[in-house]
Amino acid sequence: MIRAGIIGATGYTGAELVRILYRHSKVEIRYLSSRSFAGEDISSVYPSLKGCVEKSCEEQNLGRVCEECDVIFAALPHGHSVPIVKRALESGVKVIDLGADFRLKNPEEYERWYGLKHEAPDLLDEAAYGLPEIYERDIEKARIVANPGCYPTSIILGLAPLLKKGVIKTESIVADSKSGVSGAGRTPSEKTHFVECNENVSAYGVSGHRHRPEIEQELEKLAGNSVRITFTPHLVPITRGILSTIYAELDFDITQGEVRELYESFYQHKPFVRILPEGVFPRTRWVYGSNFCDINFYVDSEAKRITVISAIDNLVKGASGQAVQNMNLMFGFSEVEGLMVPGLCP
Amino acid sequence: MIRAGIIGATGYTGAELVRILYRHSKVEIRYLSSRSFAGEDISSVYPSLKGCVEKSCEEQNLGRVCEECDVIFAALPHGHSVPIVKRALESGVKVIDLGADFRLKNPEEYERWYGLKHEAPDLLDEAAYGLPEIYERDIEKARIVANPGCYPTSIILGLAPLLKKGVIKTESIVADSKSGVSGAGRTPSEKTHFVECNENVSAYGVSGHRHRPEIEQELEKLAGNSVRITFTPHLVPITRGILSTIYAELDFDITQGEVRELYESFYQHKPFVRILPEGVFPRTRWVYGSNFCDINFYVDSEAKRITVISAIDNLVKGASGQAVQNMNLMFGFSEVEGLMVPGLCP
Amino acid sequence: MIRAGIIGATGYTGAELVRILYRHSKVEIRYLSSRSFAGEDISSVYPSLKGCVEKSCEEQNLGRVCEECDVIFAALPHGHSVPIVKRALESGVKVIDLGADFRLKNPEEYERWYGLKHEAPDLLDEAAYGLPEIYERDIEKARIVANPGCYPTSIILGLAPLLKKGVIKTESIVADSKSGVSGAGRTPSEKTHFVECNENVSAYGVSGHRHRPEIEQELEKLAGNSVRITFTPHLVPITRGILSTIYAELDFDITQGEVRELYESFYQHKPFVRILPEGVFPRTRWVYGSNFCDINFYVDSEAKRITVISAIDNLVKGASGQAVQNMNLMFGFSEVEGLMVPGLCP
Amino acid sequence: MIRAGIIGATGYTGAELVRILYRHSKVEIRYLSSRSFAGEDISSVYPSLKGCVEKSCEEQNLGRVCEECDVIFAALPHGHSVPIVKRALESGVKVIDLGADFRLKNPEEYERWYGLKHEAPDLLDEAAYGLPEIYERDIEKARIVANPGCYPTSIILGLAPLLKKGVIKTESIVADSKSGVSGAGRTPSEKTHFVECNENVSAYGVSGHRHRPEIEQELEKLAGNSVRITFTPHLVPITRGILSTIYAELDFDITQGEVRELYESFYQHKPFVRILPEGVFPRTRWVYGSNFCDINFYVDSEAKRITVISAIDNLVKGASGQAVQNMNLMFGFSEVEGLMVPGLCP
Repeated sequence: MIRAGIIGATGYTGAELVRILYRHSKVEIRYLSSRSFAGEDISSVYPSLKGCVEKSCEEQNLGRVCEECDVIFAALPHGHSVPIVKRALESGVKVIDLGADFRLKNPEEYERWYGLKHEAPDLLDEAAYGLPEIYERDIEKARIVANPGCYPTSIILGLAPLLKKGVIKTESIVADSKSGVSGAGRTPSEKTHFVECNENVSAYGVSGHRHRPEIEQELEKLAGNSVRITFTPHLVPITRGILSTIYAELDFDITQGEVRELYESFYQHKPFVRILPEGVFPRTRWVYGSNFCDINFYVDSEAKRITVISAIDNLVKGASGQAVQNMNLMFGFSEVEGLMVPGLCP
Repeated sequence: MIRAGIIGATGYTGAELVRILYRHSKVEIRYLSSRSFAGEDISSVYPSLKGCVEKSCEEQNLGRVCEECDVIFAALPHGHSVPIVKRALESGVKVIDLGADFRLKNPEEYERWYGLKHEAPDLLDEAAYGLPEIYERDIEKARIVANPGCYPTSIILGLAPLLKKGVIKTESIVADSKSGVSGAGRTPSEKTHFVECNENVSAYGVSGHRHRPEIEQELEKLAGNSVRITFTPHLVPITRGILSTIYAELDFDITQGEVRELYESFYQHKPFVRILPEGVFPRTRWVYGSNFCDINFYVDSEAKRITVISAIDNLVKGASGQAVQNMNLMFGFSEVEGLMVPGLCP
Repeated sequence: MIRAGIIGATGYTGAELVRILYRHSKVEIRYLSSRSFAGEDISSVYPSLKGCVEKSCEEQNLGRVCEECDVIFAALPHGHSVPIVKRALESGVKVIDLGADFRLKNPEEYERWYGLKHEAPDLLDEAAYGLPEIYERDIEKARIVANPGCYPTSIILGLAPLLKKGVIKTESIVADSKSGVSGAGRTPSEKTHFVECNENVSAYGVSGHRHRPEIEQELEKLAGNSVRITFTPHLVPITRGILSTIYAELDFDITQGEVRELYESFYQHKPFVRILPEGVFPRTRWVYGSNFCDINFYVDSEAKRITVISAIDNLVKGASGQAVQNMNLMFGFSEVEGLMVPGLCP
Repeated sequence: MIRAGIIGATGYTGAELVRILYRHSKVEIRYLSSRSFAGEDISSVYPSLKGCVEKSCEEQNLGRVCEECDVIFAALPHGHSVPIVKRALESGVKVIDLGADFRLKNPEEYERWYGLKHEAPDLLDEAAYGLPEIYERDIEKARIVANPGCYPTSIILGLAPLLKKGVIKTESIVADSKSGVSGAGRTPSEKTHFVECNENVSAYGVSGHRHRPEIEQELEKLAGNSVRITFTPHLVPITRGILSTIYAELDFDITQGEVRELYESFYQHKPFVRILPEGVFPRTRWVYGSNFCDINFYVDSEAKRITVISAIDNLVKGASGQAVQNMNLMFGFSEVEGLMVPGLCP
């Protein structure tokens, strides 16, 4: 039984961590902090938790959390994680950062996209990129895990087998992602106003989104050469879910069946990636509330192109579920502990 | 470890039973039948289950299910349960009927509202009405449980403490319920067409709905005298959830605080009923995917009226979750086994 | 051709006025003001208007609007209309207030519910209550029109024929209303966050809502005696629309057919009230984007109760459409000018 | 004043024609036919029309419709239009086909994608492709207009200026479209069930959709050489709207500003195409219920790629609005007559 602390427990990813960890047989939720709701019980902020988790949220106190916990989840906006990570390392506490501060390995890229000078560039290399299907070994040994962005998770998992085998051209990949509104966070804004989102589909970040350098960094590692993608995120009127439709040119002739073998073999021992049967394409409903990433694809031999479609729940496999999966690996638990739950469907 | 069979496994309540029982530590899903999808795997009908439950659906075979199972869940439209119940009783198998055939104690009322002559009126008295917060003792001993309707569950739980104590007048109760579309079942129809439901609120069954006699039957037992309600169900564009707003006249002066004590004491040992804090009214989101029934109320002393609001997930506490709660009681398991999960929120 | 000014043009009701007046053959939109978007074109705030209405929003300038306009629409939150109304009257300009400042005739009631001392109690009697189906004659002669609240419009129109004829008891009316989120206005808040509204139904204002005294004031005038209602507004995940389900006890025996005659005769010459055919109950979709109020009812002779259901678009008949209908009467135009448009359905 | 007949008046595009033509000053709706609702009034099928259009739907009678009408709108599934078109031509009546039967110029392509032998291949050349922004002159003279598909409209308008000027490579275009559910028609099915669509995003037709050959046919005419696109339609939980995100490689260096000039000049005299301001990307809400097509784009000079985004209402510019626009041209009316209405927003 390990003890976990969540910093930023009342944002959507923080609350989702609470919901998931509550069902985890090897973790005690020891510490919750919240700037906005310090002094309030988590179950008064999220009455859905009443009767299951009733625990007060505190002001952030790094000393206490490092003393009382074995693992810290930092569920904060970018720019707030460095002091937490430093203090955790000093105290021998493992830390999983759900924010963006340790995802990009290049501090200049970080500064370019996030508008902040990175305060601990020396720690960037140490942080494992927390995509267990790719970096399982690194994560097992890591003290710091940078939990991936939601869009990157869906796109990297969708493309990994193809890039690893050099099946597609790397300079002309297009990723068109459709996301639910919970990905925009809990703070009210015009962007998240019901009336603005409902009965609407819109693109955003068309001229550049912070997840693009993260996606390219990881795709390049898989491909072994430079990758340039066109990435367009869209907002659709659903609460949870990301569907990414990914388009690439084939670098050589390959059949639908061969690609299927490739995916099935690549993800053979990965319990949370499901390659759907021939002709059945992912739907966000099927992964709703679950840690699964569903994938399927279509090879257009005539046009020498491939279309890959992947679906995740942005708050689970795209954030808090993946964080718990990382924790499982870091502490030697079964990878699926607390997470092997089907999507809530219908 | 008991063995469960689900007849009608591919309807929404059937699939929800599969989802819930998968997490139940004391039940093995042994048998699934489906008329529409016989021969197909449940995970190809509901790909959300892939990787969790993979099991073929068969043609209904009462001999086999009775031989191989300890409990049968009948998740069929009304009019189909009598042969199942009879065969189960003969074989010493317990049965929980999620349909309407054993809810009304009076066979003439059944015939009036369902348009069918009841084929086993002698068994009606034996069937326990499966609302565990009221009939726990009966359910523990029952061979047949009639699982309540979704609207009745939300309304009876909302009113029980008031009627038991004689706080309200019984001839002028109004229940205004708002339901998600999954309550209408899986068969496509104009009523369930996305374009007809989306951006729409509508009432139906205004001149009479089959759940009214069921609600009145149960309210009368609680009140000890005759009850006549006005009940209007509404369809709202959500998948899951029922919010019932219930209006009644107070029969004597009683304060908000006294009513609170009444509810808290009535539901003191009922783990799935949550009386929300003062001024916090139920939202269907907070019970989404959970077996909770959230309740709160407002006493208008000036007008001598009370408004009670209750929320459930129609597929869980309003159907399959409650069925599993009943099974837990029937087999001496902990009442909450497999069910103590918070709402999926956000 | 008259000239209209809209103060508060970039809120939802302001923008809806622009949309409706654009199609009006006898009105020129002369002046738009907006605190938040002064200096910006209305079509950059609402790109839906591009190519139809392109006009700059200004800082509020009462002198100019009174000089340049024949009618002013004040589309502001309560507490801001008195100076506008006073200046308009001085300048001989007619004014239609879409806010709440002139709806309640009793300044103490206003202070009790809105928390502000009324600054022009002497003008309250002069203001016509802008419900044309009831106060046509008053509105035609009025210099000030208090445009009714959205909930009151749906409830008063639903009950008027019954109260006028003394058909129902006035002390036990229940009004259960379900509203789209646009009724909560454009300012982002937790209440209007997509993730909080989507897949959710909730009640609010259970212990008292500002529209209750307004509804009671008007129902009392119709009934000729005191009225006490229980009113519960609900938020449902749609953009536009209010469905009100209204419950009352019959004061004497009356048949479904007699009530139908009552409604049809009462609304005989009212082009925007549609009594739906027997058994067809209102849906908000059918009035979407239109100025219609659809009504139907069911007489439960056995229980001596009646259920009335009405539907409006809260931004049209519940706000801006009704304001234009009032303007039509005030200026002697055809009542339906610019408004006789069917609901946008599907 | 001309007389119009609508065959298939109770489907979604038929009803939308009725809604639009009702506001048209130069058209009388003379004839409505419906197989499913013959004998019923259109306002009982669509109560939204009550008080505006009340007219009985008849069994299809080609003799009568040709005798009584000047123009026929055929709003039927593919495979039903040839007899209507033939009879109309014989009678000197103009016909606008909202189905797919006259869109593809090559009868073999038609047979390949629609599984039917074309019954009037000799008429294919005569039919004008009813995209007025491209084929205005042809449409003005046409006796038969093939009204374009909804996806093709959004994609062709989005790409036309680029292809006409040879700005992009024609062999690697990707079109990712997101459509509302009304595009799937009124017949209930699993695909259009509320519970299947709500809280869901999914791709369909990934391996080939009937609109692809139509899009390619038209893009080729614009480009003057062969075009091969990858087209993936998606279903999103909205009623109306298509957002198409289109990706292409630039064939030579061109700046954002130069592309802007290209679009603005190409669509200079096209009242229904709106090029949005720099950095403002289309949203389906802004065209809701309107005949506009909104477009914007982003030139990624570094990657030598362009992303174009277009939005239409699939039932208006994607079907019935465009049909009326075609009718206006065919009869010498103003192109915008009856159609210059802003989107219903909020």
